[in-house]
Amino acid sequence: MFELAELGHTLEKEIYKKRVPELRTQLLEVQNKLAESNFPVLILISGVDGGGKGEIINLLNEWMDPRGIQTHAFDVPSEDERKRPPYWRYWMGLPATGQIGIFVGSWYSNPISQFINKKIDSADLDSQLLHVNNIERELVDDGMLIIKCWIHMSKEHQKKKLKSYKKDPGKKWRVTKKDIKHLKLYDKFSNIAERVIRQTSTGHSPWLIVDGSDIKYSSVTVGEHILDRINTYIKHSKLKPFSKEKTENNNSIKKEMSLLGSLDLSKQYSKKEYNNKLENFQGKLNLLAREARLKGISSTLVLEGWDAGGKGGAIRRITHALDARQYRVIPVAAPTDEEKAHHYLWRFWRHVPKAGQITIYDRSWYGRVLVERVEGFATKDEWLRAYTEINDFEEELSDAGVLVLKYWLHIDKEEQERRFKEREQISYKKHKITEEDYRNRKMWNQYEDAVDDMVTRTSTEYAPWNLIEANDKRFARIKVLKSYCDALEKKLG
Amino acid sequence: MFELAELGHTLEKEIYKKRVPELRTQLLEVQNKLAESNFPVLILISGVDGGGKGEIINLLNEWMDPRGIQTHAFDVPSEDERKRPPYWRYWMGLPATGQIGIFVGSWYSNPISQFINKKIDSADLDSQLLHVNNIERELVDDGMLIIKCWIHMSKEHQKKKLKSYKKDPGKKWRVTKKDIKHLKLYDKFSNIAERVIRQTSTGHSPWLIVDGSDIKYSSVTVGEHILDRINTYIKHSKLKPFSKEKTENNNSIKKEMSLLGSLDLSKQYSKKEYNNKLENFQGKLNLLAREARLKGISSTLVLEGWDAGGKGGAIRRITHALDARQYRVIPVAAPTDEEKAHHYLWRFWRHVPKAGQITIYDRSWYGRVLVERVEGFATKDEWLRAYTEINDFEEELSDAGVLVLKYWLHIDKEEQERRFKEREQISYKKHKITEEDYRNRKMWNQYEDAVDDMVTRTSTEYAPWNLIEANDKRFARIKVLKSYCDALEKKLG
Repeated sequence: MFELAELGHTLEKEIYKKRVPELRTQLLEVQNKLAESNFPVLILISGVDGGGKGEIINLLNEWMDPRGIQTHAFDVPSEDERKRPPYWRYWMGLPATGQIGIFVGSWYSNPISQFINKKIDSADLDSQLLHVNNIERELVDDGMLIIKCWIHMSKEHQKKKLKSYKKDPGKKWRVTKKDIKHLKLYDKFSNIAERVIRQTSTGHSPWLIVDGSDIKYSSVTVGEHILDRINTYIKHSKLKPFSKEKTENNNSIKKEMSLLGSLDLSKQYSKKEYNNKLENFQGKLNLLAREARLKGISSTLVLEGWDAGGKGGAIRRITHALDARQYRVIPVAAPTDEEKAHHYLWRFWRHVPKAGQITIYDRSWYGRVLVERVEGFATKDEWLRAYTEINDFEEELSDAGVLVLKYWLHIDKEEQERRFKEREQISYKKHKITEEDYRNRKMWNQYEDAVDDMVTRTSTEYAPWNLIEANDKRFARIKVLKSYCDALEKKLG
Repeated sequence: MFELAELGHTLEKEIYKKRVPELRTQLLEVQNKLAESNFPVLILISGVDGGGKGEIINLLNEWMDPRGIQTHAFDVPSEDERKRPPYWRYWMGLPATGQIGIFVGSWYSNPISQFINKKIDSADLDSQLLHVNNIERELVDDGMLIIKCWIHMSKEHQKKKLKSYKKDPGKKWRVTKKDIKHLKLYDKFSNIAERVIRQTSTGHSPWLIVDGSDIKYSSVTVGEHILDRINTYIKHSKLKPFSKEKTENNNSIKKEMSLLGSLDLSKQYSKKEYNNKLENFQGKLNLLAREARLKGISSTLVLEGWDAGGKGGAIRRITHALDARQYRVIPVAAPTDEEKAHHYLWRFWRHVPKAGQITIYDRSWYGRVLVERVEGFATKDEWLRAYTEINDFEEELSDAGVLVLKYWLHIDKEEQERRFKEREQISYKKHKITEEDYRNRKMWNQYEDAVDDMVTRTSTEYAPWNLIEANDKRFARIKVLKSYCDALEKKLG
């Protein structure tokens, strides 16, 4: 695989000096075009240590407008990073639309170094690479252009380079102990690199292997590749504008059988039963949450449901049992402009709790497959692939030890009307009822279909949906509390 | 001080039941008004542990619209927090305009607990409280409304409460070991609390002391106080709109003596001298930076200077000597909407480096006293107080062990014109010259005044300004590099 990249490509000084000013001008032009378009560019620079990655990145930063480009070099994760799912820090560093992000030490570093150091076996490596492919596909689906450059350098050449540096008093400082250690691991690294490149060179995000033996050659090659990829992408997206096929609002008749229809909404508790159970489960939850905190186990709770389904009330029954320092309730409101400029999951990644913390979402990422689907804010393609994206996201949380629980608070149409009317009578609840609520009511059947699909496609072993019979608020609150207690208890063993 | 708050205030159930719905309605109304105005509200809830802070916060969250209120409970700082100046996490949690933030365990917790645990003495405490007063004043100056509530409870009452909880199987879980420990420290805590309240009850942000013995009384009292403060503030700011007095553009004649005028711009290096020194200092810097990283010493470098003064070039001569994982260059561009909704220093706090990291600003917070002053984007009042705010900010960085260095790259008017012309000839530098640059040139004298003032008022022992003779790019780059090396060397001892 690296045969071609070991031929020792060079670029003559004269040609370099002539080519660079042109390239810089073109790169600036393409940056301007990019700034006006609606997609981000992610450049991954990987390859052998000592292959000149650092110099290439320095030159790219020199050539381009610094306001539109940001380099993230990922090192050993910090404590706060370790306390979150491994991909959290990569998500936080993703470029916004119109921007270029350069990752050094990206999601490729860990699998490779872990495998070399025998911390994971071959099957683990495959599974990690599968995950890498998934994440890249998700980002590309969302419109991101991913450009991957692998800087290669033959063992012989690397040896020679280190030697010549060591002799030169002006360049001696460039040689570190790490470089020498890495040279010893060269063959191992090279073998595994080949495998990684093979498995992650996808149609949408292929690797470019660059001979790194001459910085003039490698930097111009990488620069031209970036230029070409962005230009082609812009051209292509103009020819084929992102399809914005709206969902057909088939005002279908109510289905004969539905998941929600199968719930027994007559379930209820008397006030006395409720008060007893409430104190009981709140006390239990308090103890369990403290234990979870000590053990570093986080929870992510998602509350979804019909308007006026009682989400807020259910959340408060949970938080009243918790220490204010341990939880955060996140009501999902309109995204900020920083959030709009990223993948729709980015703003949820932002709030991923640290180990031991509890995050409760009042509405969530499921908006994508509920309101955005029904109202046509997301294209069919977008909400269809969202099921997989959401499953992947929740799996990452779960793999990092987070307890993920999702609740749908179900009431029937009559109960909803009763609650709307009741709210309109109470001065401090009036604001909760808007025209939009009545408009949503008219789409009841479409929402019901969307909920059925959502539960079917995203109820997983690691993040199950709990359907809550919520016509009786007391019953619903206790069921949510109890289910959270049970899940915590199980998790704590 | 707490005499009144120990009388055992209660609110009858009937009155409470009648008052709460009114209060909720009014709070929602005031939240709506707030959402449309241009200031944030910060509520600090402090007081004895077990005094019912948690319950009050739960109720406030229940009464108000969750989309406009966010509670931050600060616990023991995490590793990532400890690796930054102590106030970093508070800055990150500040509410945006139109929003309410509640802080539990705010900047008051640390001074109090450290003093009780004898980790700081009386003088340290005073110095910390002075700092608290400064930060609150800065926030208030920027338009923030700060509401501080101290929840008190007499020792007797607290004892009784814990006892009764322990007996009740349904409430037993509410009593923690910490509560019992804190009860033992009650007298100490009470004495120090009095002192803290006294010293930090300022005209703009007074403390309200609330008797916490009855949750009905305390919650309604706090709720009404919040309502009253926000309403009064809105009314007041309508009567007296923020004064937007623009700076007079006194097209003053050039001053006889100026700091910048005293620089010898004829200083220069030959190409050979330059190349030697460059390799030498880059090698030195690389070693020093590695040592600083190991020792956890961060640097914050600020590059300011005339347009075309050579900031970018000087920055690159530094970064070429560094490992990409250790530094970040932040080109200061237009703020995002999240940034605009905060204090102007917030977006710089955001990027405060972790211990061992290097952050280089290409333009910086000094925009406030340069372009914003000259162009009249900031009122005179705003840029005048910015000197103190900036000094405080840099002192915090410095106190946290950060090396803060500031450079003004000075060229004369003729050299600038020459560079503008030169840039216009180079295809990839053309974009750097805009009409704005020529417009700025016309304000040369005003900028020169602003720079003189800036250097005079913000050159401190802990964060000095370095004026760089930059008519010769080579000379300037070496001087910046050398000065950074010298400062690092001194810091590393």
